[in-house]
Amino acid sequence: IENKSDQSLLDLLQEVHFADIAEILHELTLEEATYIIKLLDSEKTSDILTELDSDLRDNILRNLSAKEIAEELLELDTDDAADIIADLPESRKEEVISYIEDLDHAKDIVELLRYDEDTAGGLMAKELVKVNENWNVLTCVKEMRVQAENVTRVHSIYVVDDNDKLKGRLSLKDLLTTSTKTAIKDVYIPKVDYVNVHDSAEDVARIMSKYDLEAIPVVDEIGRLVGRITIDDIVDVIKEEAEKDYQLAAGITQDVEADDSIWKLTKARLPWLLIGMFGGLGAASIINGFQDAMELYPILLIFIPLIQATAGNVGVQSSAIVVQGLANDTIGGEIINRLGKEFLLGLVNGIAIATVVLLVSHFLFDTSYLVSVTIGIALITVIVNAAIIGTFIPIFLDKKGIDPAVATGPFITTSNDVLGILIYFLIAKVILGF
Amino acid sequence: IENKSDQSLLDLLQEVHFADIAEILHELTLEEATYIIKLLDSEKTSDILTELDSDLRDNILRNLSAKEIAEELLELDTDDAADIIADLPESRKEEVISYIEDLDHAKDIVELLRYDEDTAGGLMAKELVKVNENWNVLTCVKEMRVQAENVTRVHSIYVVDDNDKLKGRLSLKDLLTTSTKTAIKDVYIPKVDYVNVHDSAEDVARIMSKYDLEAIPVVDEIGRLVGRITIDDIVDVIKEEAEKDYQLAAGITQDVEADDSIWKLTKARLPWLLIGMFGGLGAASIINGFQDAMELYPILLIFIPLIQATAGNVGVQSSAIVVQGLANDTIGGEIINRLGKEFLLGLVNGIAIATVVLLVSHFLFDTSYLVSVTIGIALITVIVNAAIIGTFIPIFLDKKGIDPAVATGPFITTSNDVLGILIYFLIAKVILGF
Repeated sequence: IENKSDQSLLDLLQEVHFADIAEILHELTLEEATYIIKLLDSEKTSDILTELDSDLRDNILRNLSAKEIAEELLELDTDDAADIIADLPESRKEEVISYIEDLDHAKDIVELLRYDEDTAGGLMAKELVKVNENWNVLTCVKEMRVQAENVTRVHSIYVVDDNDKLKGRLSLKDLLTTSTKTAIKDVYIPKVDYVNVHDSAEDVARIMSKYDLEAIPVVDEIGRLVGRITIDDIVDVIKEEAEKDYQLAAGITQDVEADDSIWKLTKARLPWLLIGMFGGLGAASIINGFQDAMELYPILLIFIPLIQATAGNVGVQSSAIVVQGLANDTIGGEIINRLGKEFLLGLVNGIAIATVVLLVSHFLFDTSYLVSVTIGIALITVIVNAAIIGTFIPIFLDKKGIDPAVATGPFITTSNDVLGILIYFLIAKVILGF
Repeated sequence: IENKSDQSLLDLLQEVHFADIAEILHELTLEEATYIIKLLDSEKTSDILTELDSDLRDNILRNLSAKEIAEELLELDTDDAADIIADLPESRKEEVISYIEDLDHAKDIVELLRYDEDTAGGLMAKELVKVNENWNVLTCVKEMRVQAENVTRVHSIYVVDDNDKLKGRLSLKDLLTTSTKTAIKDVYIPKVDYVNVHDSAEDVARIMSKYDLEAIPVVDEIGRLVGRITIDDIVDVIKEEAEKDYQLAAGITQDVEADDSIWKLTKARLPWLLIGMFGGLGAASIINGFQDAMELYPILLIFIPLIQATAGNVGVQSSAIVVQGLANDTIGGEIINRLGKEFLLGLVNGIAIATVVLLVSHFLFDTSYLVSVTIGIALITVIVNAAIIGTFIPIFLDKKGIDPAVATGPFITTSNDVLGILIYFLIAKVILGF
């Protein structure tokens, strides 16, 4: 396709959805991608740019002039435009903004840049349809036609007073079924959910998905309507949250993809491996400290992987349930009850596993009576301990205002590994008396 | 609050959003919850029922008569009503349906019950606004007013031909800005994304979030418009998918919550612990098979936890990246290149970790030269091996049509544990020659 005539390429891409073109660009070289972006008109390319990975987008934008970027931004909603500008180097930001021809658009973008991207202010767009409570339905419909030009999708019509304070909303349905002379004052719905510009993106996502909202108005500190957030942005927030939790559970510092460079992947993965490594060295020290056991009961050593794997698995299970419960706000009741429950659960699982292990090891490894008792009691204790630690740490972190998701994965596995092995040898020492 | 006068309770709950009432009910006993459901009118309780956990909902519904349930369902959109009926025992389903007064509503629900809940058919609602391509804008607006009565939120107006086949869509904005005499034929947008009733819920979620759609029409095998899916249902699908993947990675069979019974939690967790247990017993057999090593080089044994933890962590990292890439469709290129990249990545991480371990163990455990070399080479080999296995297994499962998420967590950790220990002792045997 590349290097053929521009016209045939244009015709080919004309009918393709921008999200699909964005996918194609990821497969091409940077030169080819830039070439295509420059070839297409800005109405299409601006949408493509919003769909690209930030790495590729930054590289393409580096090849465009400030004026070209400004033209792209003019085609975008303010929230998408602000997201793109926010990623530019400081020096280019002002240059690009100065090239934006529509001054209102530029002003809106500058306002959005003020907010942290993880807050409602960072998510919202300035495009919305608002009407004054003192208008009647006819004026309202006329005004809406003008405003709707700039708004891709009309969800709700927001009603404000003369000071721009949010008063309520008006549904399109009501507007369709009311006489044109009715005053807006008399028909609007005064109950409306809203968020503050400084609310966190997570909170906005929770409110919108709890109440099944498709758009929510955003107000500033004194209740003035300043923007709205639509559900498609929230879908992205929910996905990113889920991915972050998943990656933390797997021991990957957030925000890497399979196609990132080896250097970037190493930076994301190595620190967690080092945690595991120090845990492993800690465990080595513990075992090394029980020289007597190693000499008198070498059979104990072959069960180290079993103790360790079990402790790690139980800890991850317990912490995952708690982390998910915290994220969904479904963790209720007293912390002591929850720990009591995990204790019982650990006991049930522990006894089940210890029974199987004792039967198998008796036949397979011909373990003596006392060694069997040691292994059984150790397994149950280790499982109960791992369950309680796995439950306690995320709840504790959450109470301290730290994301409990960091407690899952290598962190909890490693601490349970080390503690499990210590418990194992201590119990062995008591029972076998070395 | 309980046991006071009904009226004060009613007044209190009148202004509370149904999603909040649902949350309150989860904190109450079953008797109290049922009491409140019976107290409130069906317009409110029907919405509350859709927000409840299926366990609690099933219990409350058991306390209601078939007639009472039918009244609740009448207030709901067809998709939510079908979801509730689907959870009822077979014998009650027909009884409840026979009590639904609105026959069209009942017919729609019965139709929806035919579809698997994980398909587009299972997600869709019958409520939508559709117009015939042969109408003009005026007829269209009139018809829409009638249809909109049944539709909570109007997203798009779908255009069909005389045979009910989906032809395109009409935006509300266009309708607001076109003369009333224009024929629908001349103004509708013929390009419309749609899904088939048999498409999977995951595919629908992917399409809707890729193209930022807020609603998508659903067609049957011969292209007739049969329903529509809205973004709020998709938000639920995305959340459930993410939770499922997260739980699988943590080794929990899907669909448990922190508040479930110990029996249910044990059923979800014990099978995965047993996988880890058999892995641990396998590792015990391997170590037991190297009796010579245990006698001649007991120092080797203290590094077992280190080898095992590292292998497990690397495997989980690699598989998590692949699983997430597969879920987001961002895995491109040849499988051989990806394995090559993991090989390099494993080598980099392996050398880094081996270096630290050698330094520490030299000072801490006074390991001999040959033992140090053994540990170093074993660590690098184990890391590279775990990275490749962690990458290969999910890709392989995905190619075979199995959810790659099952490969993460205990499954991959256990196989890497066992294999890691085997590799360790084999390398030791070669280098130390026992």
